[in-house]
Amino acid sequence: MTQVTVWNEFRHERTDPNVAAAYPHGIHATLAEGLARTGLTVRTATLDEPDVLTWWGHLAHDEVSDVLVDRVHQRILAGMGLIVLHSGHYSKIFRRLMGCSCSLKWREADDRERLWVTAPGHPITEGVGEYFDIEREGMYGEFFDIPQPETLVFVSWFTGGEVFRSGCCFTRGRGRIFYFRPGHETFPTYHHPVVQRVIANAVRWAAPTG
Amino acid sequence: MTQVTVWNEFRHERTDPNVAAAYPHGIHATLAEGLARTGLTVRTATLDEPDVLTWWGHLAHDEVSDVLVDRVHQRILAGMGLIVLHSGHYSKIFRRLMGCSCSLKWREADDRERLWVTAPGHPITEGVGEYFDIEREGMYGEFFDIPQPETLVFVSWFTGGEVFRSGCCFTRGRGRIFYFRPGHETFPTYHHPVVQRVIANAVRWAAPTG
Amino acid sequence: MTQVTVWNEFRHERTDPNVAAAYPHGIHATLAEGLARTGLTVRTATLDEPDVLTWWGHLAHDEVSDVLVDRVHQRILAGMGLIVLHSGHYSKIFRRLMGCSCSLKWREADDRERLWVTAPGHPITEGVGEYFDIEREGMYGEFFDIPQPETLVFVSWFTGGEVFRSGCCFTRGRGRIFYFRPGHETFPTYHHPVVQRVIANAVRWAAPTG
Amino acid sequence: MTQVTVWNEFRHERTDPNVAAAYPHGIHATLAEGLARTGLTVRTATLDEPDVLTWWGHLAHDEVSDVLVDRVHQRILAGMGLIVLHSGHYSKIFRRLMGCSCSLKWREADDRERLWVTAPGHPITEGVGEYFDIEREGMYGEFFDIPQPETLVFVSWFTGGEVFRSGCCFTRGRGRIFYFRPGHETFPTYHHPVVQRVIANAVRWAAPTG
Repeated sequence: MTQVTVWNEFRHERTDPNVAAAYPHGIHATLAEGLARTGLTVRTATLDEPDVLTWWGHLAHDEVSDVLVDRVHQRILAGMGLIVLHSGHYSKIFRRLMGCSCSLKWREADDRERLWVTAPGHPITEGVGEYFDIEREGMYGEFFDIPQPETLVFVSWFTGGEVFRSGCCFTRGRGRIFYFRPGHETFPTYHHPVVQRVIANAVRWAAPTG
Repeated sequence: MTQVTVWNEFRHERTDPNVAAAYPHGIHATLAEGLARTGLTVRTATLDEPDVLTWWGHLAHDEVSDVLVDRVHQRILAGMGLIVLHSGHYSKIFRRLMGCSCSLKWREADDRERLWVTAPGHPITEGVGEYFDIEREGMYGEFFDIPQPETLVFVSWFTGGEVFRSGCCFTRGRGRIFYFRPGHETFPTYHHPVVQRVIANAVRWAAPTG
Repeated sequence: MTQVTVWNEFRHERTDPNVAAAYPHGIHATLAEGLARTGLTVRTATLDEPDVLTWWGHLAHDEVSDVLVDRVHQRILAGMGLIVLHSGHYSKIFRRLMGCSCSLKWREADDRERLWVTAPGHPITEGVGEYFDIEREGMYGEFFDIPQPETLVFVSWFTGGEVFRSGCCFTRGRGRIFYFRPGHETFPTYHHPVVQRVIANAVRWAAPTG
Repeated sequence: MTQVTVWNEFRHERTDPNVAAAYPHGIHATLAEGLARTGLTVRTATLDEPDVLTWWGHLAHDEVSDVLVDRVHQRILAGMGLIVLHSGHYSKIFRRLMGCSCSLKWREADDRERLWVTAPGHPITEGVGEYFDIEREGMYGEFFDIPQPETLVFVSWFTGGEVFRSGCCFTRGRGRIFYFRPGHETFPTYHHPVVQRVIANAVRWAAPTG
């Protein structure tokens, strides 16, 4: 049985009432619920040797110690899957794996986002259809400074005129990595059923083989 | 000196007054002018051993004989560059090179298109900036059934809510291939200075080495 | 349950005593046995809507009709997996999918082959170790005229001084394609337990999702 | 005019008589001579804003300060090319760019190496032919823990039964990176005319555009 650990720094939800309103039990709880409903075994917060790790962080990237990043890095190269969500693009571990700045454009906005599938037979897009919409989201735009993804799975369209490579697959050592854009902390994105479906698909895809 | 041949079926311009109004001397003449202005040696229409071939076609893909397609295919595998423009995605030669259906969504529309650069250091995007706009264009949308490009150079945004992988690099044998989306036959797209710049960049990138 | 169809032209085994000695019931029977032992549902020879198709052919590529190739091509783009074995590199369907000549160097020889894993966490290399040997094999060498594989899984070493990209993954439309080099018709390659393991792994990897 | 800086730690040549015998003026001098002969402008050793940087290091990777690695990394993302030679696979800058351990197998040996071209139309293989031999070399073998190269240009064969992905292209930000395996410090590899040719080709390929 695939085990998932959902990592969340759990700061914003305790300090910002807007975030608390959207995610009263923390973003990790909503993510975990969505995954558990699909039959996966889910733990939150602690970092003890899971098959797949999902990573959400925003304010406190620099407080994650280099020693921890080293340990997570080693585990990924040895086969642990990693799902990097939204502002996790700036986490130490994602920048370490990509070898790029991982910078991007963004706007605190009230955009509509449409995510188009660019890899329709891929395990991560199973059950998604041609596209799906998120009614209110912050904007992330190109240029997103990452290596060309091994497989580009989603491209986002935003009301304001931007596009973004929102679903990107990579391999490092034995580990499979998926970056997934959605998830602003004051919008209820992780309650969205298709977003939950994609994350569950990604966890299964990233789980180590054999 | 890099030699370019600009191929055009030259039907639409002689049968449809709207097309003729936009391109009185044929789409190939406008393309050739833009390329010649950058210092390249340009021939139009005939197919005698160029270094790079640009391909525009729309109505008469099926009238291109299989014998000709075989010859062009052999030349590409031997090193000739190929720039496939707009509706050339359905040409026999492009489908032969891709091994996919090359189908896509489209709409005869009056959309605005914004092309975002997703490979800023690439020779094809030299001098382009972060994005450029085409004020009126027909829409092409995902899913575009091609293999994952070796390098994805442009992603388009359209007013109607669509995205499209508009600049895609491939290699087949010794030949370099660039697909470039812009170019509806009743809009003056190939008069656009940035579009002309990109095509000239692509010709230089696709020219055989050594 | 994943269904596999093992396709074989079944000529060589009935006309050449050396081939018949190595594969008295046909190459397809040996392949099917190895797959069935791993718990897969295997049919041989006929082409009625499987999830995954394995393809072996050598002498009679040209006798496969274009109509059949069209049908198989459509099915792959719609999601059917394809495992192309050994001399199947010259089959019409593989060349159609690749868009290249698919030519390579070869020698009727009595080489030893060592296949090195270049993608250790990949589902296709599960259980293989760092490399495996085939004691007697014909030689296939570079340049192998294919597009750069999306994932390169095996590289072969041959006694005579050659190397070959022996395990190559591609996607076309919704279909996953794996080319696997081993399998000379007069050597008992498909009785080799690791070769059987790799083919079974590949069938599972190539099976359509959802 | 493309400017190249050849970086060398210059330790081994001053402490080990075997190395000194092979490279009396330092490895950087031999590399620089080969490049200058092809018409490039070459500087050695100091690190002041070149277009392309070649990197040789072996014993003292850890003495390169993190501050310097940060600066080089920023320059590469901004467009500087990087050619990483031989044992430079373990340099801080290469590991930073790859996001992997960059580990490999090796043997102090007296092997013969044959490098096969797997990308015959690529600018880096211009003028090389199908393969070239290095009569005496140390061995590097798979698994080489790097991301799948964007383009795989050379695969090596070694007498002892190993293979290695010896020429690998990557992009990070605007910067182009080429890893090239040959170059043991006690063998005269960098005097080899084809090795010199490949390095010169790579410098031209990696030079920033525009």
